[in-house]
Amino acid sequence: MFSDTDLYAEKLAQAQQELKEGELWLIATRENLEHPEPALSLLSGAHLTWDTFFLLSRHKATAIAGRFDAPSIEAPWQVQIYDEDYTALLRSEVAAHSPQRILLDYSPNNPMMDGLSHGMYLKLKAALPEAEFGSAAEFLGGLRSAKTPAEQARIKAAVEMAEAHLEELSAHLHLGWSELQAMEYLHERLREEGLEPAWGWNGCPNISFGRMPSHAGATEKRLEPGMLIHTDYGVRMRGYCSDLQRVYYWPRPGEGVPEEVTRAFPVVRRAIDRAAEQLRPGVKGYEVDAVARATITDAGYPEYKYATGHNLGRATHDGGTLLGPRWPRYGQSPEGRVREDEVYTLELGVMLEGLGYVGLEEDVVVRPNGAEWLSRRQEAVYCLEP
Amino acid sequence: MFSDTDLYAEKLAQAQQELKEGELWLIATRENLEHPEPALSLLSGAHLTWDTFFLLSRHKATAIAGRFDAPSIEAPWQVQIYDEDYTALLRSEVAAHSPQRILLDYSPNNPMMDGLSHGMYLKLKAALPEAEFGSAAEFLGGLRSAKTPAEQARIKAAVEMAEAHLEELSAHLHLGWSELQAMEYLHERLREEGLEPAWGWNGCPNISFGRMPSHAGATEKRLEPGMLIHTDYGVRMRGYCSDLQRVYYWPRPGEGVPEEVTRAFPVVRRAIDRAAEQLRPGVKGYEVDAVARATITDAGYPEYKYATGHNLGRATHDGGTLLGPRWPRYGQSPEGRVREDEVYTLELGVMLEGLGYVGLEEDVVVRPNGAEWLSRRQEAVYCLEP
Repeated sequence: MFSDTDLYAEKLAQAQQELKEGELWLIATRENLEHPEPALSLLSGAHLTWDTFFLLSRHKATAIAGRFDAPSIEAPWQVQIYDEDYTALLRSEVAAHSPQRILLDYSPNNPMMDGLSHGMYLKLKAALPEAEFGSAAEFLGGLRSAKTPAEQARIKAAVEMAEAHLEELSAHLHLGWSELQAMEYLHERLREEGLEPAWGWNGCPNISFGRMPSHAGATEKRLEPGMLIHTDYGVRMRGYCSDLQRVYYWPRPGEGVPEEVTRAFPVVRRAIDRAAEQLRPGVKGYEVDAVARATITDAGYPEYKYATGHNLGRATHDGGTLLGPRWPRYGQSPEGRVREDEVYTLELGVMLEGLGYVGLEEDVVVRPNGAEWLSRRQEAVYCLEP
Repeated sequence: MFSDTDLYAEKLAQAQQELKEGELWLIATRENLEHPEPALSLLSGAHLTWDTFFLLSRHKATAIAGRFDAPSIEAPWQVQIYDEDYTALLRSEVAAHSPQRILLDYSPNNPMMDGLSHGMYLKLKAALPEAEFGSAAEFLGGLRSAKTPAEQARIKAAVEMAEAHLEELSAHLHLGWSELQAMEYLHERLREEGLEPAWGWNGCPNISFGRMPSHAGATEKRLEPGMLIHTDYGVRMRGYCSDLQRVYYWPRPGEGVPEEVTRAFPVVRRAIDRAAEQLRPGVKGYEVDAVARATITDAGYPEYKYATGHNLGRATHDGGTLLGPRWPRYGQSPEGRVREDEVYTLELGVMLEGLGYVGLEEDVVVRPNGAEWLSRRQEAVYCLEP
């Protein structure tokens, strides 16, 4: 397996390759435990308290750090240390890169490309009054989204771990369990492995018995016969996430899966197929969304109120191109083009009143000729036998 | 004990009291698991994915949230839900507060008051082109620093837990242990209690055998006779942190604590005494720092390269007034005035070449008449008997 050091080195080489001549990428951060800089996490595991600057151009990687932070910054970053003031150092180090354009981590559209705080932005403006700043979002979206081999291997491992946990859950579910108990069952699996849930202990897994899921997560609601069991779950393993939705049904005594469910499931599955067929290098995010969305509405189901897919990586919502509709709240994200080596979720569903949510989510990586499944697809609504 | 709900309610009431008539405090955040908003954490445990806005004025607390995020926002926030676009809703909700001034969470000086990303700032400017924005830092510094009774109780409990763990460590340390082994010993204590280290698993505790500590933390260096053992450790318990430094000595066979150590320790302790005597409501941060710093240099030791103390709370470095020198890199933080109910660390030390670091750190709360110790003070360099 790849070590963290290998992974950071691989990503740094990718970043230098994707930067253009004359571009300087400047990451400005501090107290990165309380306030992580999502772009820095791609390149370094450093723990930083004081103001710290990472300067990357095609041929040079330098950092400016406070004395006590400097030792936590790994090679190949060449670290300059300050005690009282870094202004002169910052100016001279920026000049040493002779940049024509300085890219900063801000983006109205993408939280993962928006790691620069407004206060640090004001500090940079004051320290470098002549500098021409621009958003790093386009470059960073590409860097973050196109996964290196080490990153793909880690995501695949996180997918397999989540699948194993979900299989165990489906074998152990009991009538009368609350959603919170099912959640706790998966949390125990995570603790056994020393892992974390992909999107926090409070909301992951998101378990819904006989109802529409919400980001508020699992509740005291108890499992009864005649309910759909919906799980939205992912594992964060060695820094990378998986994100899967599965759906099960607990039948009433002597009954099978209701016809409404067996009618809805193939539509949901087909909508994901359509999205996967559409997902290839060069296509725009909203074009992938549109085919999946139309499959649902053409079948007479209501339109779902979210995007069909998002990038998956260090974060569950890893930024970059969104496979989403052109709604104002998504900004420019659905306009991006899909690229090779990007990893996406494909997720959507149909709410059946009185039964629950028929929702699926699979994880795929984009190859030159199209999508490759990272997850083992769900083939049918699994009926849990008492 | 106070519940989280009580604690959020107490802090929200404090915020409304400290806001002036006509002021609207506007928190804008999203994906707050990957990118936490340190100010929002004071008021709500909500987990948010989409763009979310919290609007607080003296008599009104409203929030605007995406459909799936809304259920995780607790009362008394009145939540308005959006699906596709929030611009009109944001405008009307801001207008409903009739603000003369809108305060945003940005600050060049204080990372904990700098939770607004530059990208979200640009979005606010675009959505509210007429609005007059200002920094919330002054208000927020006061709010964050002045701890409510529930917050003080939690910090005190975190201090006591860290003290108990350090006592256990000092009783179990072995010659030949590496710094990393000592770290692992404390990590086991944390895991047993289901707690987290105050500033992350990688850097907390920071253990140094016979050397100057750095933020890079513990190493493979092994404990030998004739070394000072320095620990910098804190516990994060129910959301609040402690932060303590202790120093021990492992004697050479047949020898006691070297004279250099017994000479330095009282100077370090006296410098902390002086800072504590100076620490009372109304004094400026740099004035507290100056008396401690002068105690060290007057005794002929080199000046330490960091601040004498910082606020302690949800974060180890909790922002607000810094008990630090007027160095450019500290910006305006040392100019702040100390206020009642603030909780500070007092920390400093002296490096003794060939022996290690004689460093102490205590935690105090500011009362009307001066500092009250939250930690049991270290009285002497504890000599660890083989």
